[in-house]
This record gives sequence, structure tokens and C-alpha cells, in this order.
Amino acid sequence: MVGASRRPGKVGYMVLYNLKNSYRGPIYPVNPNATEILGLKAYPRVLDVPDPVELAVIVVPAHRVPEVMDQVGRRGIKAAIIISAGFREVGEEGAKLEEKVIQIARQYGVRVLGPNCLGVYSPSTGINTMFLDPEKQSLPGNGPIAFISQSGALGAALLDVAALRGLGISKFISIGNRADIDEADLLTYLKSDPHTRVIAIYIEGVEYGHVFRQALENTTPVKPVVVLKAGKTSAGARAAASHTGSLAGSYQIYNSVFRQTGAIEVLHTEELFDVAQALALQPPMRGDRVAIITVGGGSGVMATDWLSELGFQVPLFSKETQQRLRKILLPIASPRNPVDITGSGTEDHMAESTRIAIESGEVDGIFLIPYFNIATMTERLADLMAPIAQKAKEMGIPIVASVTGGQKSWRIAKLFEAKTGIPVYPGEHRAARALWALRLYGKWLQKIGRL
Amino acid sequence: MVGASRRPGKVGYMVLYNLKNSYRGPIYPVNPNATEILGLKAYPRVLDVPDPVELAVIVVPAHRVPEVMDQVGRRGIKAAIIISAGFREVGEEGAKLEEKVIQIARQYGVRVLGPNCLGVYSPSTGINTMFLDPEKQSLPGNGPIAFISQSGALGAALLDVAALRGLGISKFISIGNRADIDEADLLTYLKSDPHTRVIAIYIEGVEYGHVFRQALENTTPVKPVVVLKAGKTSAGARAAASHTGSLAGSYQIYNSVFRQTGAIEVLHTEELFDVAQALALQPPMRGDRVAIITVGGGSGVMATDWLSELGFQVPLFSKETQQRLRKILLPIASPRNPVDITGSGTEDHMAESTRIAIESGEVDGIFLIPYFNIATMTERLADLMAPIAQKAKEMGIPIVASVTGGQKSWRIAKLFEAKTGIPVYPGEHRAARALWALRLYGKWLQKIGRL
Repeated sequence: MVGASRRPGKVGYMVLYNLKNSYRGPIYPVNPNATEILGLKAYPRVLDVPDPVELAVIVVPAHRVPEVMDQVGRRGIKAAIIISAGFREVGEEGAKLEEKVIQIARQYGVRVLGPNCLGVYSPSTGINTMFLDPEKQSLPGNGPIAFISQSGALGAALLDVAALRGLGISKFISIGNRADIDEADLLTYLKSDPHTRVIAIYIEGVEYGHVFRQALENTTPVKPVVVLKAGKTSAGARAAASHTGSLAGSYQIYNSVFRQTGAIEVLHTEELFDVAQALALQPPMRGDRVAIITVGGGSGVMATDWLSELGFQVPLFSKETQQRLRKILLPIASPRNPVDITGSGTEDHMAESTRIAIESGEVDGIFLIPYFNIATMTERLADLMAPIAQKAKEMGIPIVASVTGGQKSWRIAKLFEAKTGIPVYPGEHRAARALWALRLYGKWLQKIGRL
Repeated sequence: MVGASRRPGKVGYMVLYNLKNSYRGPIYPVNPNATEILGLKAYPRVLDVPDPVELAVIVVPAHRVPEVMDQVGRRGIKAAIIISAGFREVGEEGAKLEEKVIQIARQYGVRVLGPNCLGVYSPSTGINTMFLDPEKQSLPGNGPIAFISQSGALGAALLDVAALRGLGISKFISIGNRADIDEADLLTYLKSDPHTRVIAIYIEGVEYGHVFRQALENTTPVKPVVVLKAGKTSAGARAAASHTGSLAGSYQIYNSVFRQTGAIEVLHTEELFDVAQALALQPPMRGDRVAIITVGGGSGVMATDWLSELGFQVPLFSKETQQRLRKILLPIASPRNPVDITGSGTEDHMAESTRIAIESGEVDGIFLIPYFNIATMTERLADLMAPIAQKAKEMGIPIVASVTGGQKSWRIAKLFEAKTGIPVYPGEHRAARALWALRLYGKWLQKIGRL
């Protein structure tokens, strides 16, 4: 930790504070004016650190980074994260400094993340190089989503959102100026990372288009990649240029690359996680036919609208399947599709309808709409649905759910999600878009002969 | 309360229970087999109730409703809410029964809401005829949004959502089969309701198109009307037909009517409240130019994209205004537009930038992006921003905000919203759509010469 500080509030203090709280391995603060920081023995220079070291985290002022990088290289450390700002993003002088740092790193074979970044957060290893104040924001726990962000501030805020939503993260990587390691490198790494099932990326622009394209092409057959591209309009591209200095480029080109490589492009930050969660929990969808099973007729109508607009079919069930459904449902229920179990329907009605729909062979995906604010719809649904969800997964039939409701409903919905692995969204439109992503990825895998 | 029950869980019990808990005036349970229910003296028949009565709430089985309505009429009660189901929605027999009930009501001049509805929830008067279980769902407090729903179950679930979001409701009206009172009647009523500033409607289809159209035309010059229309696609229309029995009709016609009458059509349930809240809190927007003031560059880029796609401009500020901004901002900040105060920017930077933008005369609306997870952005922003928001409102310049963050951020965001009257949304796309609605309503008022 080069540039560790004793002064609370300073970046060099916060990084050490957070790292110490989450990482179980040895940490060596480097500071020429301290012998101990936060209870850890401090060293005047990188060269003075005794043990073998795997990673250097650098927060010293920009002009001191070349000297530090030289010591890092000489010390045999093979990886460095440069948190410090004041490089390419501040103009020509900074760009020259950045080049110099990277030259030194290359000379010693050091791979560099940053500069001008938050670094890495990895819940499974406890590595957390971010200077975020835990009093002001939370971090998500361990989980299947890797998240790469070109914007540090946005990335941090989105980690806070992920924590609120109860989503799990395998790795968060803030790439900053990406003077060495870039999105393409990270895709290649995450493709083989056993902790990562889905990769989510926020980008404004990439520097080496063909390399990025190649990395996408190599990754999507193995794991889904969800991309949020900012700077799509000309005004947005101008704003991106003054933010990350990215040439946002022609959006048409990005859009084509995403379609041609099977990357799933999402529309906004909410959808980035909505879709990543669906892809992490549910199998890709093999066809366009969806069964809607709802306690609320109105929500069934809206789900039908959204699914139709996204290219799905909501086919009427066959006479036989309607017959099977009719037997287990209330007389006032509708077995057609949407299956409206009505507000008097029970957990059993919803679970059994789902089982019948899966077994019918007439649909490729299931869209559940349980309202947890009604008396007959309780936590019991999760227990009934868990084995059915498991069976559907094995059959390659994805299930998503939409819940409209308040605090009490969401407590149950989150339990339901945890027990069944069925992602739950606050609205038909969001669940429909999640299913759309599962279908888009399914189509891609079918196209390349992997499904 | 005709059909009041002593058995917890029954509709006739829940309605009385909820009504008793919220309404301060006298309530008369009617039940031939009870002398007292929930501590209230009960009467065998409506005709036996002693005092003048203003409203009859009817929950008896469908076949008994004609007899009850006759007594309601003879008793001189001028308004009735029929909660009971088993009318037109169950087929021809039910339709005949419904007709009979309405004939009796008309004979005595009784206006009827329902049947097959939840009735009314009015926080200001305490009238609550809904049979919802307070253990399972919450209700919003008093506020400026009137909400009409053709679907009872969806309406209830959305009230729960409104409570979770801290939105205030003036009246919630579930119209059910709308055998007498329909959307058009309610628009006419709510137009003059002093507690209502915005009207939000969920509909699948209307029966008398020209009457509805006329009611919209009369209402929108006075108050904004936000409409969520379900059953837009052919599959959705089919689902609507089996839900509320509505002929969803050609969506193109609805869409034209909304555009021609100045009603604001939204895309989904989240947006229904997003937009209603914006219209309740902020003035209609007079032009297309927006200033974005952000602590996060990435969010500024995404906001620019969304605004551009929705027809707004994010113009570069003039040299003079950039000069004024540069004086108060950090050297690393960007004063162009988006104004990026950066993650090191303070509450003062955001407030002062807003003031300068408003005074510049160069923009018609403001889009704020405070990240409350960063150290320098605290609750203090609300105090600094309150007078500026007030001034902007007087100038007819709307302000919306987007916050990306977790639980701690949202606690501050909600305080900010309450103190400043600036609606806060969880994402640039949603704040942009809220501003779009303010502009759409502004354009409408300009077109009819009211702005």
C-alpha cells in the first residue's frame, strides 16, 4: 500500500482502512514518515518491504508514481493498481507521465490497472482497494456477477445499488485510464474465472475496437456479457469526451459489434443488474413461447403487452393443458394464458400451474406474477416452487417473476428469490426485459451451435 | 356497511375493520344476525339505520344486492359502493343482475361505484372501503395524486408501492365493472377536487370513447392526467378481454386520443408514479434546453443520452456562464454542460451551479445528479437547494434528480425530496422520462394557450 496515510479521510488512509478490514493476508503500508499505520508496521520504501509481495496499490501523487513503479519492478512485484489521478485525464503533461509509468512497468513485466481508478473489489479474496467510506455506502457480498466499470464513481454507486438489491459480485474492477489492462484483458481473465457466471460492463468507449471485439467473441460462447454503453448520442459522446476522454465513436458501430458478437446491450443502469441477475440465475431460453401465471389480471395484460412487443408469443394453451389447469384452479380462474389464478388463488394454484405449464411442452419460458400483499400468497410459495424451478432449469426453461408491492411484499419476494433462484423484478416491464435477455442469449448460443 | 361480518378474514369484516380504523364519522354495520360488530351497534336492515346516511358500502352476495339497493334508495342514501362480485364479469346472468341493480339505483337517484371493485381510499377523510389486510400491505398517506384503477388487485398493489415510495394520494378509486360511475365521471369530479393536483389512471379499455375523450379534454387544461393503458398489443387485448371484459380496442385510437387531448401516456407502472410525482411537484417545462449538474461524469453522459433521445437539448453554456461556473467550481470540474462538479465537489458547488444555471436564461429545466455515497455530498444539500428550488419553480423551471446508490443514499435522497420538492429517481433514464412528461405537459399547455 504505497502512499498509506495516518490521516483519516485521506485516500491513503481509506484504502488501507478498507483493505485491512476485508483482506486476511499480510499488508505492508509504505510511508517514509511513519513506522506504524492502523496497527500495521510501515516501511519507508517499497524496496524495504521484506516478504514476497503480489500486488502494489499506489496512491502517491502522480509525479511520484514513476519512482514508485521503478521500485515495484525492482522488487519483483508483478501487479500494480494505480489509484492516483493526475495522468492522461488532466491533459498532455499527464499523458506523458502516464506513458513514462507504463514504460517502466513494461520494462519489469508489471501489469498495471489504472491509473485514475478505484481498483478492485473481490469479496471472495477480501481484496478491496477502494477508498469508499463504509459509513456512507455498502458493498455487495460474494456472488456470480463480475462488474467492470470505466467510471469509478458510477461503479461505486452501482455497487451500493447491488448491495441494496442483495446481488452478489465476484469481482468489481474499475479500469480508470486503462493505460495497460483494459476491458479486453479483463474479459479474457473473467472468461476463465470460476467465480464469475456473468460479466457486466459499463463503457463509454474503447481504444482498440478490434481487440475488444475479439475478446467479446471469445467470451460470449462461454459466459454471457452484458454491456451498458454510454455516449450513444452526439451530445452524449461530447459529454463522454470531457468525462473519461473516450472517443465514444459511432454508436452504430458499437451496436453492430454487440449484435455480431452475442453481447447483450442494455438500456440503463437498472437493466444492467436486472439482466445480469437473470443470466446468472436462469438458463438461456430456447424458443419464443411464454406462459404467464398471475394472481392479478391487470398485470397479466401488461406482461402480455411487454412480451409481445419484445417478440415473444403468449400462446393459448391447448385444450388438454387448459383441462389440466381447470382441474386444479378455482372456477373463476382463467386457464388460457395468461393463466389468471385470481386474487383468491393460492400458492398451490400458482405452483401447480407452473408445473403443468412446464410439462405441457407448449412454452419455452415462464413469467410468474405473485402479489404477496394478498392473504393467500405467502412465503409458502417459495417452498412449493423451489423443486419446480429446479426442474424447469434442468429442462432449460427459464422462469422470471414480477412483483408489484410494498415493503412487506418485498421481504417475501426476496426470500422467494433466494429459495427458488427465480429473479423477481418490481414490474412486468422489467421482468419481460430480463426474459428478453435470456432469449437473446439463447438465440446467440443456438446460432453458434452451443445450445 | 351492508353485509358487515363478525368473522375475521371475511370481506364484510375486513371492510368494516379498515373503515373503523380510519374513518372518524359514524359507521352503521348492517347484518340481520348481529347486534354489535367490532364494538359498533349493528342494524338488521338498511331501513333500520336511524341517522341520515351519506354512503352505503355493500358487500352482500350478488343476488341480494337488488333488495339492498332498493332499501338504500328508499332510505334516501345518494351514493353506494358495491364491493360484491358476481355481476357482468361472470357472464350473462350476472350482467342482467347488474342491470337490475342499476335500474333500481337510477329510480332513486343513487350514484353507484362498482360492482366488483375495491371502492375508495381517501386519506384526508379517512374513507377506506377496501378489504385489504393491513398485516400484508401498507397504504400511502395524504398527498396530491388521485389514482383511478380499472383493476382492483393491481390498484391495491400499486398503493402498496406508493406507500413504499413515500408518495401521497388524494383519492384512490377502484372502478370495477363501472356500471354507473366511470372514468369520465371521476375525471370531472377530480378536476375540481382541491386535494388533487395530478390524476393517474390505469385502464384496459373504456366503454364510451367519446365521453372519455371529452372528459380528458376538459380536465387536462386544469390538471395533468397520466394514463397507463394496458391491452395495447393484440395478445394483450385478448388477455384484457378475459380479465375485465374490456374491449381494449385499437390501441392506435387510444394513443391518438391521448395525444389530441393532452393526456400523458406512460409505459409501465413504475413510470405511472414517476411521472405523476414529477407533475405534482414541479412546474410544466417551457422549452427543450436542460442543464445537467452531476458529481459523476458517467451519469452525466447517460443523462445526456437519455435527454437527447427524448428530444431535449443539453446545450453548451455560453462563455459568460462557463466563466461564472468556473469561479465557484474546483479546477478539475467541467463547466460546459453537463456541469461535472466531480466526486470531490461539495453541496455548495451543486447548489451554486444550479443557481447560476437558472439565472443564465440558457436552460428551461435542471437535471441534478448528486451521489449521496460520496463524503462531500450530505443532507446539507437539501437546505442549500430548498430556496433555489423554490425560485426555479416560480420561474417555471422544473428540476428533477437522479440518485444511484444504496440504502444510506436513499435515506438522504428522500429527505432531499421532502425538503426541496425535487423528485428523485433511481436512475438517469427515469428522471429523464419524468422531465419528458413535464415538457410534454408544458407543450400541451402552450398549444392551448395556457402557458
